[in-house]
Amino acid sequence: MSNAALVSKMVAYEDADDRVRAVYDDIMETKGIDWIPNFWQVLATHPPMLEDVWASIKSAMAPGRIDPLMKEMIALAVSATNGCEYCLESHTAAARKLGMDDDLQGELMAVIGAFNRTNALAAGYRVPPDEKLKAAARRAPKPA
Amino acid sequence: MSNAALVSKMVAYEDADDRVRAVYDDIMETKGIDWIPNFWQVLATHPPMLEDVWASIKSAMAPGRIDPLMKEMIALAVSATNGCEYCLESHTAAARKLGMDDDLQGELMAVIGAFNRTNALAAGYRVPPDEKLKAAARRAPKPA
Amino acid sequence: MSNAALVSKMVAYEDADDRVRAVYDDIMETKGIDWIPNFWQVLATHPPMLEDVWASIKSAMAPGRIDPLMKEMIALAVSATNGCEYCLESHTAAARKLGMDDDLQGELMAVIGAFNRTNALAAGYRVPPDEKLKAAARRAPKPA
Amino acid sequence: MSNAALVSKMVAYEDADDRVRAVYDDIMETKGIDWIPNFWQVLATHPPMLEDVWASIKSAMAPGRIDPLMKEMIALAVSATNGCEYCLESHTAAARKLGMDDDLQGELMAVIGAFNRTNALAAGYRVPPDEKLKAAARRAPKPA
Amino acid sequence: MSNAALVSKMVAYEDADDRVRAVYDDIMETKGIDWIPNFWQVLATHPPMLEDVWASIKSAMAPGRIDPLMKEMIALAVSATNGCEYCLESHTAAARKLGMDDDLQGELMAVIGAFNRTNALAAGYRVPPDEKLKAAARRAPKPA
Amino acid sequence: MSNAALVSKMVAYEDADDRVRAVYDDIMETKGIDWIPNFWQVLATHPPMLEDVWASIKSAMAPGRIDPLMKEMIALAVSATNGCEYCLESHTAAARKLGMDDDLQGELMAVIGAFNRTNALAAGYRVPPDEKLKAAARRAPKPA
Repeated sequence: MSNAALVSKMVAYEDADDRVRAVYDDIMETKGIDWIPNFWQVLATHPPMLEDVWASIKSAMAPGRIDPLMKEMIALAVSATNGCEYCLESHTAAARKLGMDDDLQGELMAVIGAFNRTNALAAGYRVPPDEKLKAAARRAPKPA
Repeated sequence: MSNAALVSKMVAYEDADDRVRAVYDDIMETKGIDWIPNFWQVLATHPPMLEDVWASIKSAMAPGRIDPLMKEMIALAVSATNGCEYCLESHTAAARKLGMDDDLQGELMAVIGAFNRTNALAAGYRVPPDEKLKAAARRAPKPA
Repeated sequence: MSNAALVSKMVAYEDADDRVRAVYDDIMETKGIDWIPNFWQVLATHPPMLEDVWASIKSAMAPGRIDPLMKEMIALAVSATNGCEYCLESHTAAARKLGMDDDLQGELMAVIGAFNRTNALAAGYRVPPDEKLKAAARRAPKPA
Repeated sequence: MSNAALVSKMVAYEDADDRVRAVYDDIMETKGIDWIPNFWQVLATHPPMLEDVWASIKSAMAPGRIDPLMKEMIALAVSATNGCEYCLESHTAAARKLGMDDDLQGELMAVIGAFNRTNALAAGYRVPPDEKLKAAARRAPKPA
Repeated sequence: MSNAALVSKMVAYEDADDRVRAVYDDIMETKGIDWIPNFWQVLATHPPMLEDVWASIKSAMAPGRIDPLMKEMIALAVSATNGCEYCLESHTAAARKLGMDDDLQGELMAVIGAFNRTNALAAGYRVPPDEKLKAAARRAPKPA
Repeated sequence: MSNAALVSKMVAYEDADDRVRAVYDDIMETKGIDWIPNFWQVLATHPPMLEDVWASIKSAMAPGRIDPLMKEMIALAVSATNGCEYCLESHTAAARKLGMDDDLQGELMAVIGAFNRTNALAAGYRVPPDEKLKAAARRAPKPA
């Protein structure tokens, strides 16, 4: 088998059509980078998915009440729990760029580790939810 | 089978020995509550674990650079990813108490949902980590 | 605490604003139903997420080369692997409506069960991917 | 430590006894290949498991109402959700051999990604299953 | 919709055909019980899967070098990690019957909890496997 | 970028302060090794977490009613279910040192594989827990 027989699984910027380039340009502008990470080059093999996933990430990560670094740290919590290597590299890089040093990463990982343990214990013991907690989870927060 | 034949799987405050009561008292004081959630009453069936898990939660949740509400929201990210019902009731209740309204919860869930999707896609496509991201993930953040 | 103190965590059709109603109407028309499932009523507490998630589901489930029943069965495979109860009720209902009888469900579950086993074994034994399989996974399929 | 001190963790065809060879021969004949993937060579270190796992895979993948390509795509849905790298290489290779091109893989991944997101959201919000969906999930499909 | 319109999703012993009854009889004899748990009654809606899953469980749980109680405790470790409620009820019941008291359950849960935490941390930090550990993992144990 | 710009993500013994060295010394003495695995060197970037995680592992793995080899095998069950590569290398190495040969590993993996399958099936079919099992799971074991 020659390499020429291989399906290209990624779409480089120079090989992209206009539809894909529009997304690539928006990714680079939004993230402030001048290259396209592998993840997006792979999704570009199916343009409707590229557009849809980028739209949802852009929307979820847009400025709001949770600050950008914290959003990357939440992404790290999800990715550590799922064990997704690519995602962990990507979100660790992004969080570092936004200021996460070793100490802050440690504080985050301590929380992630602690709750992965309690999750397994609550499930393992089949602990019934407290009625008080269920009520509190459905109650409006106190006005600030 | 009579109920008397059932092993008590939870340890009520009034039935707890001094070792367990010391932890219970610390839980109530630290959390500012006057009752013991089922989770801790179940762990008390094995006192060394009760002490050890409480110590690690207390340490992970102690004041630091991530604020208490954000720590509860990270706990929600872990618990939603694992699908732990008890944990979700418990951490939603705690986050509400600290001020999470429907809108903030929505912003959090949008992030959690978006990254559970990208995690499955990065894994499903076996996307190779970018060398640039790997370097950035190991680089110190810029001094503030 | 009175019930009035509870935050409504779902948005009923009659309480929805125009933005949410537009999504609700599209959900009902697309799915051919005349009511709004709880999942969407909950997402409506954060309208940008409601719009975004619905757009991606509508796009992913749109007519294509995988038929609608098979898409619901793939959703069942994802949901059984994650252990998501709501999702399993919802996708089982949808698959039944599209014709999945007990026998077809059994054939599906046999596949889902078998591969959850082999996944745990391949991970547990840390089996190295075969070079032949890696090459084949990157090769174009034979033209039909 | 010399390599000779290493336990062989795989059983090559030429080193296999009759019991293992019988399974190997059946694997090669059933799959139409002339070599034994690492996964099976590892399982052969415990012959009763090799026999049992192969029997269940052979049974689950046997011709039925779900076509062979779709069964491999369901295996991909399970493996992407679990994040099993070996399995993803193996099932992607098998699906490609059966005709899955980039476009079809994209349509599959769009479904897998979308439902991993909704799974996290349904869990994260603790959405109660709709009674209508529960009834429909237990109802026979309409006769064709 | 009348209940009569509901598909029976379980196969009671008295409604089972000879093929299913043969498995049911073997389950009851092997487990020393005189009734059929819901899990098996559900699988019986697809007899080839019932036969195949029972065969693999019977084979995996057969007397060997790991004692029966320990096998149930390993099943609890898997089920707590996956968060499978039915499985946790079932394996806790089986382990109790074989002698697991609260104290032993606590010792088990402490191990399960501790390693779910370290799993999340090893993934979250993307810790590279030590060469010494990789060599040791492939080395034969010392003869007893 | 020069390597000097990289944040050291591991703390070597010779670079450790007294607080970290105290834990390192205890790890080496407790485990009977003369080097520090990468996992602990990474955790040492956040000393409070290093202390807390080591304390909980030391406590969970301390001599009790479950023997040390079996505790490592339970750790393997957790790690195979989560798909944690580092953990699998580490616990396989530890179990081998304690006597796990290929045959015993096979018996363990057969159990792990079988129950990951039944977990997916119980979830996938939404099997309701049997009242008899729930009662038995809450009943004291017979006195020995």
